[in-house]
Amino acid sequence: MTALIDGLQYANWSEKIFRQMRAGGVDAVHVTITYHETFRETVLNIERWNRWFERFPDLIFQGRTAADVTLARKTGRTAIFFGSQNPSCMEDDIGLVEVLHTLGLRFMQLTYNNQSLLASGCYEADDTGLTRMGRAVVSEMNRVGLVVDMSHSGERSTLEAIEHSTRPIAITHANPASWHPALRNKSETVLRALAESGGMLGFSVYPHHLRGGSACTLQDYCEMIARTADLMGIERIGIGTDLCQDQPDSIVEWMRVGRWTKTIDYGEGSKDAPGFPPMPDWFEGNRDFGKIAWGLGETGMTAAEVSAVMGGNWLRFFAEGFGPATGPRAHQKGA
Amino acid sequence: MTALIDGLQYANWSEKIFRQMRAGGVDAVHVTITYHETFRETVLNIERWNRWFERFPDLIFQGRTAADVTLARKTGRTAIFFGSQNPSCMEDDIGLVEVLHTLGLRFMQLTYNNQSLLASGCYEADDTGLTRMGRAVVSEMNRVGLVVDMSHSGERSTLEAIEHSTRPIAITHANPASWHPALRNKSETVLRALAESGGMLGFSVYPHHLRGGSACTLQDYCEMIARTADLMGIERIGIGTDLCQDQPDSIVEWMRVGRWTKTIDYGEGSKDAPGFPPMPDWFEGNRDFGKIAWGLGETGMTAAEVSAVMGGNWLRFFAEGFGPATGPRAHQKGA
Repeated sequence: MTALIDGLQYANWSEKIFRQMRAGGVDAVHVTITYHETFRETVLNIERWNRWFERFPDLIFQGRTAADVTLARKTGRTAIFFGSQNPSCMEDDIGLVEVLHTLGLRFMQLTYNNQSLLASGCYEADDTGLTRMGRAVVSEMNRVGLVVDMSHSGERSTLEAIEHSTRPIAITHANPASWHPALRNKSETVLRALAESGGMLGFSVYPHHLRGGSACTLQDYCEMIARTADLMGIERIGIGTDLCQDQPDSIVEWMRVGRWTKTIDYGEGSKDAPGFPPMPDWFEGNRDFGKIAWGLGETGMTAAEVSAVMGGNWLRFFAEGFGPATGPRAHQKGA
Repeated sequence: MTALIDGLQYANWSEKIFRQMRAGGVDAVHVTITYHETFRETVLNIERWNRWFERFPDLIFQGRTAADVTLARKTGRTAIFFGSQNPSCMEDDIGLVEVLHTLGLRFMQLTYNNQSLLASGCYEADDTGLTRMGRAVVSEMNRVGLVVDMSHSGERSTLEAIEHSTRPIAITHANPASWHPALRNKSETVLRALAESGGMLGFSVYPHHLRGGSACTLQDYCEMIARTADLMGIERIGIGTDLCQDQPDSIVEWMRVGRWTKTIDYGEGSKDAPGFPPMPDWFEGNRDFGKIAWGLGETGMTAAEVSAVMGGNWLRFFAEGFGPATGPRAHQKGA
């Protein structure tokens, strides 16, 4: 395998989990470091990561470029790439895009379920697309090499981000809505536009995104991936588990309501099931990626195809996406 | 000449000044980006610099390592290294030391004239040395490669910083008090300890630090440098002009009072002369470094010695100082 890369996790990080990354041979993980936090609060979260990097240098280090994935593989460690699930961290200040990139941010969602200053979230009744600031910020993200992530955005906003962005974007953690209709899953229109623009989809293992929820089988999940490869092309897909290992239920509530409402919002959950759903038994954490790779092989994929999906495609995407823009238009439609 | 480096400037930056840097062949400048600002306000100042870097890529770029000085020389540009004249930018949060270093900060003064959370300034009646937090922060600065600058600190604090720091420190802009007794100039005790610990002194051209003030002659300034070389060793000295070109007098008032007092404090000035003093006629800006180099030659220094003072020593110091600590004790007393 070229590299084993997870396109999104938001775990309750600990030495245990870092050791499980190593046990699972995970070379790189895009980790969410912030949701509703201001810039200063996001920096506090970066400080927490800095202490983990200082404390566990044999297990993890901060990834900034695709070369760090190779370095991680070579030195038996996991490269940690920062991402934000909401633009709260950049406040109302476009200058923070470059500052956050300098601090290592490599993915930023334009929205987290709700309307943001930049775009509409997938839970809003009306999606008005990219805002004026949204267009300006996407251009700035393109310039510095901060990847636009539309996992939690509405359909129109996502299509407009794909159109406006001069570099390929990502949907780091979602599945096709045709397989499991959920607000967070994506239409074939979006998936086709994403693939044609050179973007990437990371397949989620979060039960609310799975057909059958926690009971979804590995076979069903892997067949879904194989069918999406037929739609998007094998080179446009990867894994983005959305693993929230060891998080208490208070965290999923905070993820959903942040500071934007005084009442409870259940998001993908419900009054009867407000907490984190149990993960499917075939994916409980970082030691289980081998099962997915095996399952993909069972669908008839070649070893090279499995390797591409398990990390090779993310590695190429990281190499294309994380540096400053070169040339007048780095993004080629249909590339 | 190996490199032409100015150890401190705080100008009212403009395209004009950047062009004068090029006209003067200045390869690198340590610029003050913050005094009394909080972390968030400091980041706003970094954003201003990012726009200048974006706007004038043929004139300037952000320097992070000594290699950037060489790159600047090779590509005909000036490398800009960030520094802070006060620890306000790190607030009360030791985790910000590494964050600021990641953002490019390479020098930080532990105090600016007053008592800080870390040490005592040179205008306080009592200097109580490094505080508890001061010792912790110096160690953290040593770890990440952020240089301790004691230009505006008291005598005891400076000696304790030299003693406690495991890596050489700097006094980026000051002169010997024996030549011109001023609160901001340094005793022979300090200069000897600085030299013995492998540290660097940058000679200021700010008139309040000069014998005779604005009327100080180039010959007198260069003779002072030559005598200090006898005391400290030729390899421990450089230039740190403290150039405040094009700043309005409102800025020097803000530098002195920040937000810490509601009344006026004249600092090195006085009620009769509250503003910036006029610079000596032989140093009005970045095009005039050649005059200092010539003046140093006139004192009898060899070409190699002049080259060391004009930038070679700072270049070596940058190479030693700006990266993460290596080995258990990077600092060797008497090195």
